[in-house]
Amino acid sequence: MTVSRVVELEGHIIDSGMMQAAFGIVMDMGGSFDVEEFDVGRTKTSTSYARMTVSADTPEELQSIVHELHQNGANPVDPQDVDLDPAPRDQVVPQGFYSTTNHPTDVRVDGEWIAVEDVEMDCAVVVERDGNGDPVRAYTKVLNAIEAGDLVVTGEAGIRVRPPERPRDKGGAFGFMQGGVSAERPSESTIAQIADAIVETREAGGDVLAVCGPALIHSGARGALAELVREGYVTMLSAGNGFAVHDLEHDLYGTSLGMDTESLDHPRKGHKHHIYTISEIIREGGIEAAVESGTIDSGVMYECVRNDRPFVLAGSIRDDGPLPDTITDAVEAQNAIREQAHEADLVLMLSTLLHSVAVGNCLPSTTKVVCVDINPATVTQLLDRGSAQAVGMVTDIGTFVPILTEKVLAAEAEAAAGDD
Amino acid sequence: MTVSRVVELEGHIIDSGMMQAAFGIVMDMGGSFDVEEFDVGRTKTSTSYARMTVSADTPEELQSIVHELHQNGANPVDPQDVDLDPAPRDQVVPQGFYSTTNHPTDVRVDGEWIAVEDVEMDCAVVVERDGNGDPVRAYTKVLNAIEAGDLVVTGEAGIRVRPPERPRDKGGAFGFMQGGVSAERPSESTIAQIADAIVETREAGGDVLAVCGPALIHSGARGALAELVREGYVTMLSAGNGFAVHDLEHDLYGTSLGMDTESLDHPRKGHKHHIYTISEIIREGGIEAAVESGTIDSGVMYECVRNDRPFVLAGSIRDDGPLPDTITDAVEAQNAIREQAHEADLVLMLSTLLHSVAVGNCLPSTTKVVCVDINPATVTQLLDRGSAQAVGMVTDIGTFVPILTEKVLAAEAEAAAGDD
Amino acid sequence: MTVSRVVELEGHIIDSGMMQAAFGIVMDMGGSFDVEEFDVGRTKTSTSYARMTVSADTPEELQSIVHELHQNGANPVDPQDVDLDPAPRDQVVPQGFYSTTNHPTDVRVDGEWIAVEDVEMDCAVVVERDGNGDPVRAYTKVLNAIEAGDLVVTGEAGIRVRPPERPRDKGGAFGFMQGGVSAERPSESTIAQIADAIVETREAGGDVLAVCGPALIHSGARGALAELVREGYVTMLSAGNGFAVHDLEHDLYGTSLGMDTESLDHPRKGHKHHIYTISEIIREGGIEAAVESGTIDSGVMYECVRNDRPFVLAGSIRDDGPLPDTITDAVEAQNAIREQAHEADLVLMLSTLLHSVAVGNCLPSTTKVVCVDINPATVTQLLDRGSAQAVGMVTDIGTFVPILTEKVLAAEAEAAAGDD
Amino acid sequence: MTVSRVVELEGHIIDSGMMQAAFGIVMDMGGSFDVEEFDVGRTKTSTSYARMTVSADTPEELQSIVHELHQNGANPVDPQDVDLDPAPRDQVVPQGFYSTTNHPTDVRVDGEWIAVEDVEMDCAVVVERDGNGDPVRAYTKVLNAIEAGDLVVTGEAGIRVRPPERPRDKGGAFGFMQGGVSAERPSESTIAQIADAIVETREAGGDVLAVCGPALIHSGARGALAELVREGYVTMLSAGNGFAVHDLEHDLYGTSLGMDTESLDHPRKGHKHHIYTISEIIREGGIEAAVESGTIDSGVMYECVRNDRPFVLAGSIRDDGPLPDTITDAVEAQNAIREQAHEADLVLMLSTLLHSVAVGNCLPSTTKVVCVDINPATVTQLLDRGSAQAVGMVTDIGTFVPILTEKVLAAEAEAAAGDD
Repeated sequence: MTVSRVVELEGHIIDSGMMQAAFGIVMDMGGSFDVEEFDVGRTKTSTSYARMTVSADTPEELQSIVHELHQNGANPVDPQDVDLDPAPRDQVVPQGFYSTTNHPTDVRVDGEWIAVEDVEMDCAVVVERDGNGDPVRAYTKVLNAIEAGDLVVTGEAGIRVRPPERPRDKGGAFGFMQGGVSAERPSESTIAQIADAIVETREAGGDVLAVCGPALIHSGARGALAELVREGYVTMLSAGNGFAVHDLEHDLYGTSLGMDTESLDHPRKGHKHHIYTISEIIREGGIEAAVESGTIDSGVMYECVRNDRPFVLAGSIRDDGPLPDTITDAVEAQNAIREQAHEADLVLMLSTLLHSVAVGNCLPSTTKVVCVDINPATVTQLLDRGSAQAVGMVTDIGTFVPILTEKVLAAEAEAAAGDD
Repeated sequence: MTVSRVVELEGHIIDSGMMQAAFGIVMDMGGSFDVEEFDVGRTKTSTSYARMTVSADTPEELQSIVHELHQNGANPVDPQDVDLDPAPRDQVVPQGFYSTTNHPTDVRVDGEWIAVEDVEMDCAVVVERDGNGDPVRAYTKVLNAIEAGDLVVTGEAGIRVRPPERPRDKGGAFGFMQGGVSAERPSESTIAQIADAIVETREAGGDVLAVCGPALIHSGARGALAELVREGYVTMLSAGNGFAVHDLEHDLYGTSLGMDTESLDHPRKGHKHHIYTISEIIREGGIEAAVESGTIDSGVMYECVRNDRPFVLAGSIRDDGPLPDTITDAVEAQNAIREQAHEADLVLMLSTLLHSVAVGNCLPSTTKVVCVDINPATVTQLLDRGSAQAVGMVTDIGTFVPILTEKVLAAEAEAAAGDD
Repeated sequence: MTVSRVVELEGHIIDSGMMQAAFGIVMDMGGSFDVEEFDVGRTKTSTSYARMTVSADTPEELQSIVHELHQNGANPVDPQDVDLDPAPRDQVVPQGFYSTTNHPTDVRVDGEWIAVEDVEMDCAVVVERDGNGDPVRAYTKVLNAIEAGDLVVTGEAGIRVRPPERPRDKGGAFGFMQGGVSAERPSESTIAQIADAIVETREAGGDVLAVCGPALIHSGARGALAELVREGYVTMLSAGNGFAVHDLEHDLYGTSLGMDTESLDHPRKGHKHHIYTISEIIREGGIEAAVESGTIDSGVMYECVRNDRPFVLAGSIRDDGPLPDTITDAVEAQNAIREQAHEADLVLMLSTLLHSVAVGNCLPSTTKVVCVDINPATVTQLLDRGSAQAVGMVTDIGTFVPILTEKVLAAEAEAAAGDD
Repeated sequence: MTVSRVVELEGHIIDSGMMQAAFGIVMDMGGSFDVEEFDVGRTKTSTSYARMTVSADTPEELQSIVHELHQNGANPVDPQDVDLDPAPRDQVVPQGFYSTTNHPTDVRVDGEWIAVEDVEMDCAVVVERDGNGDPVRAYTKVLNAIEAGDLVVTGEAGIRVRPPERPRDKGGAFGFMQGGVSAERPSESTIAQIADAIVETREAGGDVLAVCGPALIHSGARGALAELVREGYVTMLSAGNGFAVHDLEHDLYGTSLGMDTESLDHPRKGHKHHIYTISEIIREGGIEAAVESGTIDSGVMYECVRNDRPFVLAGSIRDDGPLPDTITDAVEAQNAIREQAHEADLVLMLSTLLHSVAVGNCLPSTTKVVCVDINPATVTQLLDRGSAQAVGMVTDIGTFVPILTEKVLAAEAEAAAGDD
């Protein structure tokens, strides 16, 4: 028996790799294809169109192939409605639920295509209907947020995924879904392009989320990051308990994990500063209270409080303390991270694998990402997720942030001069 | 003004580096010393004794020096009692509380030395008194466990720390407080010595705690680790949600993060196996339920359940799901980890930085540690904490665990044959 | 002004990415294209054909585009002969000489296509003519081998490059031009597939070249590699002075860089074994003499001598000694490496960046490559060159080689059993 | 049978670790000791003195222990003359020759202690006598430089080694024989201290040798390094063929390995720039000729030629070309490197393992070393050798060199201002 289905592709389907991907999927999965029509974009600006019949030996195989195809942007010519099944219990999805990609996605309900809100990978899609049973909206939900009765999309039908297209003009620091990362790229020029992206984001009224690891403080970049917060270039912060403690320790003792970041000396009792700092902030009742009381009067956390920049401190099992501000429950922390991630237009992942992965998990593929780490494996892992526009830099966070701040302020000054 | 105090050192104080450390501390901290008596151990087996007067310009400086000295094993000749202050509120320690090392420690209460229980770094020491006000015990408490009224040790007086001595016969895989780690060590011979340590620990009725990262499953070591659990060589497990999900995915689908670990093929929908596995276990109500129902019938988690080996799954912000068994609150998870860590005699840290740090934070310096990772920086960081007996190996967890299992079973068989 | 040229592509041009690459090249280089004909392979087995007119603003731009296109497999429909210019002096190529890729290449001389011999990257192509001026052969020459009067291909015309096609059945360990490399792949299964490739190569009468770094000896893999040489699975060896010295030191002293690879002890004078070994072999007159005299009677070098397996020891500036067998001149050493590389059917790059790069520089893209290192950056760099069939493994050479040897011998035994 | 010998130690033998090392050596090697006299330095500034009798079971064991002891600074109280044997043939040392450490060393000839010149590790010591047979000088020779008849030191007697003492004031970036290296150190403060060391070296009329890898050019640090050469802060250069070619490519094409280091674009034919550059310089006859002709008018090599700064380009088997200036013979290149290394007062090892090891092999332990690499394993390996004053930094060379140059010039300006 052979069963078949007709799918179509549209856009810059050749140079974006969609055509190649589609052919590969069919062949890898044991199906065959017959190209019905191929209307190639004859010039750089015109788009292409292809229609082909995909065949397989069983309906199941065909369904799998077609599913995989539309995860990659090829859609059936005869779209059907999605199947919707109610969740049987809280946190329990119906069998065969559709698990999302991080690409813009539509679902077809009652003959109409609805854009899925809050696009995020590995979620269920829930469709809300109003009192009359009319679809109101569709949005993603993580498994642990599912409530009994939620109408969850199941199966493969009625779903349309739009992977981002490769930008026409490539080159520059921001690459398209790049996997590999090289340390051998001109550092200062790359940082200049990142600075431009930050300035552009701010000019467009967008949000820049900095995801920060403790190495940022140890390596002496605290002052430069605080300046970016104060000047409004970093508008949201995501970090862990350790980052905040090191930042606060520097305010209280001038050290980070006990090392004087200016003289490089280790005051003999310096290793106790960490735990003393935590104890002090607990005594004050939290970071905001410590800023209000004047106990803390400099640094990244200080600038966040003073300038009303929202921060999320997510707890982990390696934390000392933790600080009262740290969200110790992982699910609750994820929800806070999720909210920031959905709002961000540009995400700076600065020297932290754990927090960057957590934020990256919640990002749609359309958000710009900058990922900086001294360890090439970390940068590679973070870029693997496939953002449409991403820069990976294997560099020293302790030199990166100060140079970035300098270039952001210079770009701003230049822009201001240009306005006259 | 000059103030001074007499301290003494005893033991293998020269070859263990204590003498050198003591001289260094005084000089680094701006004090001076005058050696009163130096009775050097004239032979390999005899111990040495030194007594010296330490002087500084102010009582505060002197106190800091003396404090630092006894953190390193030099003790005042005229010991005083510890100062004890009640904690003013829950989670708030008294000002100037004593923060612990991970070395065996005694405190002097009412003229008597009491050993501190549950030795762990960066904790407060709490002294319990009975109805008559007599001291009953002294033990460590992390900051967030402090309760209002707890009698907390403050200041520097009345505390005695005993750093582990360098073993007389060095050599072999287990090194003494080694910092550096080389990938260029004979792999199979090193694994053989680790296998011997595991067999010895079991023969002595001790506990072996395996701290496991997800790479262990991806790299194909799942079967070998399951065997170590089944045969009783690994008696406790500490891991994260991801490790358990990968292990269970392999049972359900034969894949790990979607890759078939035998054929190395990526079934096209394999990347969904991860989220389907989570969904399935949630539906079942947890791992134990899934084992009972027969849904899960192989793997590491299966063997833990079947053989009644306690496991701790600690949540993190990068988790999918999580599984119902995962402890999502970081503080609660730390408490569960702490309990395992205090009980363990040998800890295998297998390819996970986050969980290894969390466990390592709770270990006294007297517990044997084996640390295995492909990333030399991870191994270095984990060994830095200074265990008295530690092996660091930069190797591939996917070849390490199978070879280890083979050598453990061979050592056992050999031991059995030797018993006849 | 607009100038244009017609090019054509043939083969599996869509799923191999050729079509996508061609479109990308034209657009990136500022040209435009007009697809004249596109005859798509309608099924998995049929090939495709495309013909398009490429246009640019100047002849120079057009030439650049067309050049880049046929480096990637698109060829002008109206081929011309190559331009040939004599080299003006020894080691000096004519201006505008054609610099080779590592893909199979033809040049058109007097209207006939001739395959270029000894394909290798970054070389000149020299055409030899006989007494009558008829072309006899075309082959690559590195710059320093050019002799005055050599007829060297210049410009862009008359050259046809055939990049390897992506194999129809992907999956398995050997990937197609893969850039990224993950440590998270099942180790033992991957090694099994490499073992199969070695056995297949031998059965086909092919040559396996092992490129070896000193870590191989330190990590205890010496015996296993010696076995592969003795049993005829490794038929050629490429290494440096250090590798050979460590191998010989182990024979003479049982140590590698002074560490006993069994007991892991460091004999106190062990660090002198290295220089004593060199001194001893110099005294004997070389490795072969030391084997003949019985001074050396085990190890990798011993098996090479005894089994007549050619080895190249290339010198470097960090060498101690060096041994009399080490080729100290880099150009001379490259020539020796080149000869081995051209002959090899499968190359094992084992824990050495320097020597692997040197060998890789001389390999055509059609040679199978296995690259093993503990450092992911090394593996990535070595695979970047784009072999048609390559496996990269981030693993411990000290466990890899013993397991590989075991699996090779098992595969052989199985094959022998199957023959009955 | 027990044989024994009396040795003595003098200096800051406790806090420098000499005493500890001596005790450890005797015990590790199976000997025993009896401390005759121990005159401890009672204060920070006074030195200590110890005399002990070392015993062993056989004269051979005793000799080994005593040998090891004086490699570490403990000397026999009854010194003997060295044994001197003539080398039997060129490149062949006498049996039992003494192989050097990299510490300052004296040999006792005819009752007089002579300082060994050109201290370097793993060499033989040759003593020259004049016509009357009187000792003229003692100096190191590498094995391949030994000439028949050279009087070579053999055995253990009559040799005195002085390992560098730990400086009284520690702290700051330069550490004493530090093994471990952390990326988590304040980057800018560390660079400032390195800048100070460079300025001090120049003020003292010393030589700064930069050992440079190609990543320096790729990462955009070329201009900054050229400035250090031009301004006289870097007075000697050691590199490979690749470094020079990349530097020259940037002058000719504005690219490094084909990437535009400003715009980050890859001109399509950029990957050919490398081989074209080599071809161009060969045509010119070498770097100096290309500078003279005006073909090359910027960059690091240009500044070296223009400012008469000696450079050594050492060849390797991975070189393209090579350039006419590259020394292709490894032994000849080592000799050139050795000459520079012996003259240098401060060595900057910038992003190259191969060349840094080669230079490091020739350095006495008294030379200051700065080692910078993005790979922590490289930094660790380079510092392992034990320089008395060394800084290891895990950072991005592309940000390090520009910041260093800026700080060097600022320090200079400040010093100039201070002179007024």
